[in-house]
Amino acid sequence: MADDRITLAHGAGGRLTQQLITDVFAPAFHNDVLAQLNDAALLSLQGQARLAFSTDAHVVQPLFFPGGDIGELAVFGTVNDLAMMGARPLWLAAAFVLEEGLPLNDLRHVVESMAAAAARAGVQLVAGDTKVVPRGQADGMYISVAGVGLVPEGVHVAAHAAQPGDVVLVNAPIAAHGMAVMLQREGLRMDADLESDAAPLYDVVAALLAAAPHTHTLRDATRGGLATVLVEIAQAAHVGVLVRETDIPVHPVAQEACALLGLDPMYVANEGVFVAFVPPEEAESALCALRAHPLGRQVRAIGEVMDAPAGQVVLETALGARRLLPMLSGNLLPRIC
Amino acid sequence: MADDRITLAHGAGGRLTQQLITDVFAPAFHNDVLAQLNDAALLSLQGQARLAFSTDAHVVQPLFFPGGDIGELAVFGTVNDLAMMGARPLWLAAAFVLEEGLPLNDLRHVVESMAAAAARAGVQLVAGDTKVVPRGQADGMYISVAGVGLVPEGVHVAAHAAQPGDVVLVNAPIAAHGMAVMLQREGLRMDADLESDAAPLYDVVAALLAAAPHTHTLRDATRGGLATVLVEIAQAAHVGVLVRETDIPVHPVAQEACALLGLDPMYVANEGVFVAFVPPEEAESALCALRAHPLGRQVRAIGEVMDAPAGQVVLETALGARRLLPMLSGNLLPRIC
Repeated sequence: MADDRITLAHGAGGRLTQQLITDVFAPAFHNDVLAQLNDAALLSLQGQARLAFSTDAHVVQPLFFPGGDIGELAVFGTVNDLAMMGARPLWLAAAFVLEEGLPLNDLRHVVESMAAAAARAGVQLVAGDTKVVPRGQADGMYISVAGVGLVPEGVHVAAHAAQPGDVVLVNAPIAAHGMAVMLQREGLRMDADLESDAAPLYDVVAALLAAAPHTHTLRDATRGGLATVLVEIAQAAHVGVLVRETDIPVHPVAQEACALLGLDPMYVANEGVFVAFVPPEEAESALCALRAHPLGRQVRAIGEVMDAPAGQVVLETALGARRLLPMLSGNLLPRIC
Repeated sequence: MADDRITLAHGAGGRLTQQLITDVFAPAFHNDVLAQLNDAALLSLQGQARLAFSTDAHVVQPLFFPGGDIGELAVFGTVNDLAMMGARPLWLAAAFVLEEGLPLNDLRHVVESMAAAAARAGVQLVAGDTKVVPRGQADGMYISVAGVGLVPEGVHVAAHAAQPGDVVLVNAPIAAHGMAVMLQREGLRMDADLESDAAPLYDVVAALLAAAPHTHTLRDATRGGLATVLVEIAQAAHVGVLVRETDIPVHPVAQEACALLGLDPMYVANEGVFVAFVPPEEAESALCALRAHPLGRQVRAIGEVMDAPAGQVVLETALGARRLLPMLSGNLLPRIC
């Protein structure tokens, strides 16, 4: 690596995060499951049940923001990683690092919102751990949530499975979560309200998979935004992905906030947005199923998978020009999840 | 709670940690699995396979100490929580919170030692996540590791299952880990070396369960020390536990360090020590099996389970006096795991 110290960008979910995984984690922990680089590990239990297993650390600042808080985010974050493998989330385990001096009522509030989020997502929180660190550390609290889910028979989605011809769907307008947290942290106000889009996605994924059972790939567009997850999929599947700028739904208030601050909504984190790569013959059925679900009402087909350029994403702009879309580089919005 | 803010003692694994669980976490997340308060959740998958699922956050300071580091500790901590349910650990997921400015070589060192620890424990690290927080937070790094294991058929150990008549065994001398970290952090030196006892315990547990298949309860004596886990078990099983001070093995250098600093080794954290509650007819066989294992060579029978006083631990001192042993109260040694 160019730099010999950890930078904030190493945690931003973009190019440097990928480099950290490739250079440090993958070589040390090398195994077939980890090498898949999916949102969750797919595990075979006694040659029968297929489990999905995942973990996410949450360090969002501020702890409470419009539309959610760190507790809800931590539950949905992990539940959604499981859902992106097509797995029904079942159980969660939460590890808290608390700052000495944290008001107990803040913890109560967060824990209650985790419980509500778990109930909404249909999962049980079955194990936990708590550590406390001295005042001035951990910014109130960090929460890591691990989850276990069960992949139904017949469901086979994976980042590397995307195929030329697949239609690329996105279930909802992008950029709401990152901009909602950003505006709250910086004390900025827009004319209209902007709330995080945090939501549990298994239910809408299940509706999609029922309508389009040969869906190849699912991924939620969290850190790094829509652009970064598209590049990740293009790289994993060795395909090209073409997306049309005019078809990409952007939350209108988030778009305004992005324009104001000079940010590209394609790189802003979401917590209720996912992409689905669906074979063309099932695309219409997938669109109908998603439109019928509250979390897919604004679904859009934004592009297609091509043979080339392998590992790259091409954006067709509003003016018809084509340019390559890189992964997030640097650190657009720190601490948004 | 008396205090309306989080204190370091809330994370020490003693009375206040228990109060936090009882008052804040348990009411919000109430479910049958969590209510068992075991080291790991026991889950039934499709009515067949029994999974164990657990998580632990690690915030130890310093990151590197004699006999181990935060990475090894994080792997063994979770592996041992699974082993204490009699479960064979299979898979781990690690969530890192890194401090901006952390030397990449420190991370490499920790990751390599996690990989070595995972190999030694026979588990695969299959999923992970990394966040970065600004300089001055997270003391280098925090690591949360979640784990999934499989409980073999016929194995039924639980905190509440301890029964009057059970013999209480402890596999190894206590107090080494906590004092090794403490001496390192405070820059103190003893005449002899003291190293953490961190070790993966499934193998020795499996040997014990083969020899004493009706073992009722297993628990590793981590935060809060031997005294605290004995009280936890007495409370969970509504039994009394009698232990004899003269039979409790204490690491000699750790004992010297405790004497110097005025600490009670019964409350010092261990990372390779567990208690086993074994029915009397299997006690001899259990002792033999443990003695034959490298991690049980110094096993001792330290006491018995009684009907009364329910929920309490009685210590018979060297002088023959009897006194109640409370849980850890306050914060003996902060940040030792």
